[in-house]
Amino acid sequence: MQAYIIKEINQPPFKTEVAIPVPKEHEALVKISASALNHRDVWITKGQYPGIKLGAIMGADGCGTWEGKEYVINPGLDWGSDEAYQALNFRVLGVPDDGTFADYICIPKKYLHEKPSYLTVEEAAALPLAGVTAYRALVVKTKPKAGDKVLISGIGGGVALFAMQYAITLGCDVYVTSGTEDKIEKAISLGAKGGYLYRDVNWPKKLMADIGGVDVVIDSAGGSGFNNLVKVCNPGARISFYGGSLGKIDGLNPQLIFWRQISLLGSTMGSDQDFVDMLAFVDKYKIRPVVDEVLSFDDLPLGFQKMEAGKQFGKIVFKHN
Amino acid sequence: MQAYIIKEINQPPFKTEVAIPVPKEHEALVKISASALNHRDVWITKGQYPGIKLGAIMGADGCGTWEGKEYVINPGLDWGSDEAYQALNFRVLGVPDDGTFADYICIPKKYLHEKPSYLTVEEAAALPLAGVTAYRALVVKTKPKAGDKVLISGIGGGVALFAMQYAITLGCDVYVTSGTEDKIEKAISLGAKGGYLYRDVNWPKKLMADIGGVDVVIDSAGGSGFNNLVKVCNPGARISFYGGSLGKIDGLNPQLIFWRQISLLGSTMGSDQDFVDMLAFVDKYKIRPVVDEVLSFDDLPLGFQKMEAGKQFGKIVFKHN
Repeated sequence: MQAYIIKEINQPPFKTEVAIPVPKEHEALVKISASALNHRDVWITKGQYPGIKLGAIMGADGCGTWEGKEYVINPGLDWGSDEAYQALNFRVLGVPDDGTFADYICIPKKYLHEKPSYLTVEEAAALPLAGVTAYRALVVKTKPKAGDKVLISGIGGGVALFAMQYAITLGCDVYVTSGTEDKIEKAISLGAKGGYLYRDVNWPKKLMADIGGVDVVIDSAGGSGFNNLVKVCNPGARISFYGGSLGKIDGLNPQLIFWRQISLLGSTMGSDQDFVDMLAFVDKYKIRPVVDEVLSFDDLPLGFQKMEAGKQFGKIVFKHN
Repeated sequence: MQAYIIKEINQPPFKTEVAIPVPKEHEALVKISASALNHRDVWITKGQYPGIKLGAIMGADGCGTWEGKEYVINPGLDWGSDEAYQALNFRVLGVPDDGTFADYICIPKKYLHEKPSYLTVEEAAALPLAGVTAYRALVVKTKPKAGDKVLISGIGGGVALFAMQYAITLGCDVYVTSGTEDKIEKAISLGAKGGYLYRDVNWPKKLMADIGGVDVVIDSAGGSGFNNLVKVCNPGARISFYGGSLGKIDGLNPQLIFWRQISLLGSTMGSDQDFVDMLAFVDKYKIRPVVDEVLSFDDLPLGFQKMEAGKQFGKIVFKHN
């Protein structure tokens, strides 16, 4: 079969011919219909991820068929027994375990979940990793209520967009930040109430003048800008973050945080239960993943280039043959 | 009556003769039996607290008699309707509202709670502000479970000691940090399992070697040392902080926090419900506040000097006449 492996660091994913894997007794051999890209995959090609195993098949997200039925794959392997945190053995599918950028995958049957019938296979492939990460970060950790003002920083990525859609679905007023007006406009067209350019040093003041503050923040950047997120928080606000692409957080004001009873909540991926709950949530409200583009399996490396350039708005999906 | 007021900034509390206040209909005129000192009082004399009103009577903590019964006073005024955070109008008793460093106080009856019968008036006076702050920071925010490892930084202050006592009561294994071996020894004599000198740059490594990590941290320092608290956290850990005496937090690693699913929880004072719950909790388990020293009302300024020098271990209490 055809598969994309991580052959060496700082090279694009390498397309090669490998044997179709043979399922063990508790596993299913799934024919992949569509897969999707995550930042994680790009970081792996750069060597910026723990536990990289050269030669492994890449790809965390996938939707495929087994015994005539379509399934989405939960890419969170061996979460463990505690809902509060993943076990030491937890892995995301796709390096070191062979992933979804292939014609077939062998996967324990417990990670297969029936595809929500209202979704295309391309949409379903866009859902797993970003969908569950957003679900845990927003719904499980910050417990948003209808009417809460929710700020999503850096809109355009998969998790940020799911968080936005979930928050809108829950009756929250959603605001976004972005590096470009274009992405803010797209977010507004999807239901956001407004947005701010994070390179404008006055954006926190503008937000405060416009809406007075926010109750929930979802962030994946960290860095020195994190302080601005704290500054625009209302009393009792929850900031959930699942990434730190801009590095260490400096100059955090403890007085501001404790006096306003603000919670900073680290979150990553999601448990098996989170995945089940996420699927039930999107199915109930018929939430459709925002798909930036569907590329052919042969054009998979083009998706990596687009994500590296930060040009996508929504998930980049690969249609398999 | 005699009372200590904040007459001018950077001067000790000023003892003076003022008229006995006259209660309004919803108020009680309480004769103070004992009062106690908080860091807040010291900061007020230095002008380092918002909303200072010169001429007001100082003191948040008090126990006294009204109509023949002994009461402790809830010093958290007008918390408001949301358990998650205090209203804008929230004040701590004792500047700007006249406080407990006086022979009498007029206080709304709803803030009076029957003194737990097992406590002396001196012990009861030591309880309110530190007791409820510790209760919210530890019990309400971090939800400790029996067997959790709990680290209390900077042991010796009132809140830190209450947090330690509560955690021990809940079946947690408690560890402390301090600037002196002496305070660590005292904490161990009260039931802590061990302690570390925070000026030893290797204390986090020692803790990790000794016990592998902690599940709960209670801090009031912030500053650059805050990162060490994150480093010794187990997956799923909760860090609750109610102060920031060492200033801004720098170099916080977002990856460490989100990958370990750590929560940083700002907390301050407590709601009316927290106060009721705290009293029920200490009464149920017959927890006795750690009293450093009982001074006479006339010697009240000596207590300020001792706290400024950081020499106390436990609450400094004033016995009124």
